[in-house]
Amino acid sequence: MCLDQNRVLVSFRTPFVYAMANTQPKSLPGPSMPYRGRFNAPIGTSDAEVEDFPELELFEGAVPRGPMYQDNLEVKYIDLNMKQNKQVHHTSMFEYDGLIVRRGDPFTMNITFSRAYNPSTDVVTLEFTIGGQSHSDKNTYVALKLNNPNGKWQCQVRPQGNGVDLSIVPPADCIVGKFCTYVTVETNSLKKRTPRDPNTDIYILFNAWCRNDDVFLDSDSQRQEYVLNDLGMFYNGTCDNVSSRPWNYGQHKRGVLDACFFVMNKSGIPLEDRKDVVRVSRRASAIINSQDDYGVLVGNWSGEYDMGASPTSWTGSVQILLSYANNSTPVCFAQCWVYAGVLNTVFRCLGIPSRVITNYNSAHDNNGNLMTDIFVDENGNMDRKFTRDSVWNYHCWVEAYMRRRDLPDGYGGWQVVDATPQETSDGLFRCGPTSVEAIKAGDMCFPYDAPFVFAEVNSDIVFRKRLDYGRDEVVQRDTTYIGKLMLTKAIDSYLAQDITHTYKHPEGSSANAATMERATTFGCARDRSALQPVDMELEIIAPAVQLGQNFNLKVVLKNKMTEHQTVELTLTGSVIYYTGVNNADFKMERQTVSLGPMMTEEVAVKILANDYMKYMVDQGSLNFSCVCKFLESGQSLVAVKVVRLEVPLLSLKLGGQVRVGHDMSITMIFNNMFNVVLKKVLLQMEGPGDMGFRLKRYK
Amino acid sequence: MCLDQNRVLVSFRTPFVYAMANTQPKSLPGPSMPYRGRFNAPIGTSDAEVEDFPELELFEGAVPRGPMYQDNLEVKYIDLNMKQNKQVHHTSMFEYDGLIVRRGDPFTMNITFSRAYNPSTDVVTLEFTIGGQSHSDKNTYVALKLNNPNGKWQCQVRPQGNGVDLSIVPPADCIVGKFCTYVTVETNSLKKRTPRDPNTDIYILFNAWCRNDDVFLDSDSQRQEYVLNDLGMFYNGTCDNVSSRPWNYGQHKRGVLDACFFVMNKSGIPLEDRKDVVRVSRRASAIINSQDDYGVLVGNWSGEYDMGASPTSWTGSVQILLSYANNSTPVCFAQCWVYAGVLNTVFRCLGIPSRVITNYNSAHDNNGNLMTDIFVDENGNMDRKFTRDSVWNYHCWVEAYMRRRDLPDGYGGWQVVDATPQETSDGLFRCGPTSVEAIKAGDMCFPYDAPFVFAEVNSDIVFRKRLDYGRDEVVQRDTTYIGKLMLTKAIDSYLAQDITHTYKHPEGSSANAATMERATTFGCARDRSALQPVDMELEIIAPAVQLGQNFNLKVVLKNKMTEHQTVELTLTGSVIYYTGVNNADFKMERQTVSLGPMMTEEVAVKILANDYMKYMVDQGSLNFSCVCKFLESGQSLVAVKVVRLEVPLLSLKLGGQVRVGHDMSITMIFNNMFNVVLKKVLLQMEGPGDMGFRLKRYK
Repeated sequence: MCLDQNRVLVSFRTPFVYAMANTQPKSLPGPSMPYRGRFNAPIGTSDAEVEDFPELELFEGAVPRGPMYQDNLEVKYIDLNMKQNKQVHHTSMFEYDGLIVRRGDPFTMNITFSRAYNPSTDVVTLEFTIGGQSHSDKNTYVALKLNNPNGKWQCQVRPQGNGVDLSIVPPADCIVGKFCTYVTVETNSLKKRTPRDPNTDIYILFNAWCRNDDVFLDSDSQRQEYVLNDLGMFYNGTCDNVSSRPWNYGQHKRGVLDACFFVMNKSGIPLEDRKDVVRVSRRASAIINSQDDYGVLVGNWSGEYDMGASPTSWTGSVQILLSYANNSTPVCFAQCWVYAGVLNTVFRCLGIPSRVITNYNSAHDNNGNLMTDIFVDENGNMDRKFTRDSVWNYHCWVEAYMRRRDLPDGYGGWQVVDATPQETSDGLFRCGPTSVEAIKAGDMCFPYDAPFVFAEVNSDIVFRKRLDYGRDEVVQRDTTYIGKLMLTKAIDSYLAQDITHTYKHPEGSSANAATMERATTFGCARDRSALQPVDMELEIIAPAVQLGQNFNLKVVLKNKMTEHQTVELTLTGSVIYYTGVNNADFKMERQTVSLGPMMTEEVAVKILANDYMKYMVDQGSLNFSCVCKFLESGQSLVAVKVVRLEVPLLSLKLGGQVRVGHDMSITMIFNNMFNVVLKKVLLQMEGPGDMGFRLKRYK
Repeated sequence: MCLDQNRVLVSFRTPFVYAMANTQPKSLPGPSMPYRGRFNAPIGTSDAEVEDFPELELFEGAVPRGPMYQDNLEVKYIDLNMKQNKQVHHTSMFEYDGLIVRRGDPFTMNITFSRAYNPSTDVVTLEFTIGGQSHSDKNTYVALKLNNPNGKWQCQVRPQGNGVDLSIVPPADCIVGKFCTYVTVETNSLKKRTPRDPNTDIYILFNAWCRNDDVFLDSDSQRQEYVLNDLGMFYNGTCDNVSSRPWNYGQHKRGVLDACFFVMNKSGIPLEDRKDVVRVSRRASAIINSQDDYGVLVGNWSGEYDMGASPTSWTGSVQILLSYANNSTPVCFAQCWVYAGVLNTVFRCLGIPSRVITNYNSAHDNNGNLMTDIFVDENGNMDRKFTRDSVWNYHCWVEAYMRRRDLPDGYGGWQVVDATPQETSDGLFRCGPTSVEAIKAGDMCFPYDAPFVFAEVNSDIVFRKRLDYGRDEVVQRDTTYIGKLMLTKAIDSYLAQDITHTYKHPEGSSANAATMERATTFGCARDRSALQPVDMELEIIAPAVQLGQNFNLKVVLKNKMTEHQTVELTLTGSVIYYTGVNNADFKMERQTVSLGPMMTEEVAVKILANDYMKYMVDQGSLNFSCVCKFLESGQSLVAVKVVRLEVPLLSLKLGGQVRVGHDMSITMIFNNMFNVVLKKVLLQMEGPGDMGFRLKRYK
């Protein structure tokens, strides 16, 4: 036996498929096929590739005998019982013409033959395949022999007239994606296979209704909300002034299902890994941002969105996913809630229970330690050059519900998955799945990204006074500011549900202290330097403020000592992005206040719209920091206050009577409260059902 | 206060540095600066960047007063006590002119001033910086005030004549890399800083001698071997016929230290992460291969090495690292032992204890399950199209010794770090650090890559018989073949040390069963299908074979039943790469053997050099598989045997007397045992000390 030409051919293809499997647009340096001695076969990474199955296969030694014998069985028709299956599998609302089922539960189909099927003499096999290199060993090829249909997939066969009724159960760990269906009839000389027919393709999804599925969720109301609900609500603003924003997930809209699997294919996750919700969710968090892999969304926090759509202009995920699937290029632009919204759509579409979370005062710490350092210079000003960490007013991410087979028991349930490209996780931009239970317990030793998520919700703010030679001294610590509040949309309501307790034990509790202690044993640095006690209190109080309004800020100073104090007070006001990054300082006020023993003093500071409006950015807030130096005791105190500016609301008014099947008119009312004329107004709207997406421009 | 121009400038630079920080050669789609509202400051990723410190800094309000006052202190000379420090820090053997110390232990230096230093009036500060954006908060900037030198770095000051003797201790978790040294003297109007002087740069390394360092190794002989020894030995061949190969790590050779830190800079690991041996070793495993990041070595298993050097031609790491550092392009070509050798050099150079390991019969499983599937068709032939997994005759990786702060106690010690680009680990080509303890215990839930490494040493070989429609049936399982033996060079000897017990409990022990059981709870699939008992034994026996020889193979069949059996025996011989991948089948022998009750039969098969030599590849072996079908019982048995071909040895003979300071001659003796004339012979040699690398061509 000599060198097998076919083998060599396969090997020659390997480097190419190999590069594809990793999807990073990179070229290997050096010669183009250095792997001949390495790989036996390529790895399938796309369910869009379809294998070229022969319609006729001769048995060894057999000779084709012209037309089929009269008495040979022929397949006349395959009926996927579309309507009934979709109802049972909770997939009726998908605007998709083919069959969609969920794994682990039975679906039915009916094959009509040219004559009655005889189990003892007719050899009929049902085949399901996914991808271009399907292989039973990789679970990408499944064969069910009707007269002996045992195996990983279960099948019940009931002959019925000129056909058979089948009840088929893909296993609860079946690959998710689009399978092709074939029926093969064997005669004594050949196999005859039905031709490929896209109408018999079957999408198989994760199944939150199936007890053996890793995404099983044991509550009907939760499944309704976290898998089937296609409308959602994000919470933004600040933790003491929460605002909200509706989002159309649209996972059932026409084209979205195909688009979500297009995204999976782009992510390069091998087909055989698509049975595993941990791997699927981790890849999804990487592919939703465009970094590393030309994924779905390009982030932009600059305020300049001329090259695409402003992040605040999106009202749902549908446009984004369809655009990506049609053009295969990243969509411009996103910020955290857009990433979260699209990721949530992909999860719900695939059948993974998921929800969008808002974390208020989210620390963005770039090294997974537990300190957010804010530097103050010797004159009491915020030292922005040295302050490298930032606190996001809010940050949105997604939670997906799953069993964690890769971890010890107890870490399943909700998992943080974050597609916003904040920091690279182990080299790529992605984050999670991170067990919320592990965060609450301080168990940072398990994959993935627990230290990073832990820091987002548990960091301390450490105020440091700069000394010379880059040295500094800790003047104050705030251990409760970060991760103040986590909200998600409540089930069956547009109200917010407080889920802070799922991430954290109550501040001050011994359980909380134990969690922090445990986290630091895994190498999370925490500031523990001794602080000088300060018997003073400092607070900044702001009213609710409309964007474009003047208002008064109050700085309240309380002397709890029995000595008199002279206070040098410096108040700095700046416009910040929702990410906490400073855009521009607009206000600087210095006062000296004399404070008697046990006295409280209020300092009022007038803030003018003319000062801050010229630096305003999308979703910008005002950030006030106040540094007090007590001349007698030599001590310092710092207070920070973020003031959200309420934007004018749009209100909707229905015109006339609303009747099914008739047009209706809606009036939008917008009150311009600014003292400028608004030009280039853009109105975007989206609705459930047939309304779709609309855009209007006004000048 | 208005828009701070300087702030904006910093922000504009951010996207660029941001891309650098991640080093993947990628460009962000969309506009070029979408991160303005996101990051406060860039992240330093290179110790080759040097910050531009001013030599004179005026204090606020001060006016330059012409020349310095006579009585002001001036720095005349900085002496780094090179020889003494290098001896204490075990860095004398580095061919490097500057100072190299290890963190956590004191080094001394001496500053000579223009007059005696007065601790109560003179204000002198010693500054160490690393990288272009040094910052005390990130441990990239350190200031030691001589009159109050407390802080993370400790310093003892002893005035001595016109100068001070200093004893300085960088902390045991100090960043490793090249620090710049400055001395600043303050007068009442200004600070005067010594200019940047490369001669006072100090390399700080990991310290296996320091108890508080995460790489502490409590044995002098082990430190000598695993940190300081620059010569090593790899083991290759097959587990029952081990051969070896010397390797010159050369971590102390001129240029290698700079080259290793050049590699670190290319890896893009942030400077602040370079205190953490877990992160450093993980990045190192990624950057040693060229995939993803244009790292050091391009892999090539094709047998065609015209575009570079053949993997077998390297004799050490020095040429490779210097070539990469000089040309900044990946070096061609490597296979597993080359990757391991270079990674080991980098670790030892940086001060991390490390050693190269050979795992015999290493499973290359592409999905972290515990089955290596070998398919046999219905006629008893190996089905190479379906057999996708492969078993490497041997595979080399590196172990690095470290504390694992990121894991619970008990998982420190030796960690697997593998730079060979076998599979992507979490998206990039790298592997480890993986705790060897965790592998032995089956604790697959901890980072990094435990399932993959576990499969390499613990997979079962599953022989499957192909049925129709892609179905198969397990005919045999071998649970002991994979990970048969792990070897490393013994301390202070060129002999091999068996370290199999550090990875595995003994085969058949209850501890081993418990480990396998525990591993499967974390989702590693294992074949458990019931096997038909076969009361037959099958073994292939081969003699020791020289490359180019004819030899006889024996197939031994033992019938343990009381019935007669007719055996259809199929023997296939093929040439395989050391990776187990088939190059070509060269032999196919079918025989029918009649076997009486309780009888043993030997079948001899003649193997001709002329048959296999034409398909021979570098480090190729012969793979024989024998499938027996027992006609009476309908059962099957499979046996596999890899036969290593011994290559002719080079022998060295010293000519004449060897005296220090005199030339010596060496005669190389090579015996051509092939019956062909050898053309284009290439001889490469390398030696310790001054010999360096030499290459000769013969025709």
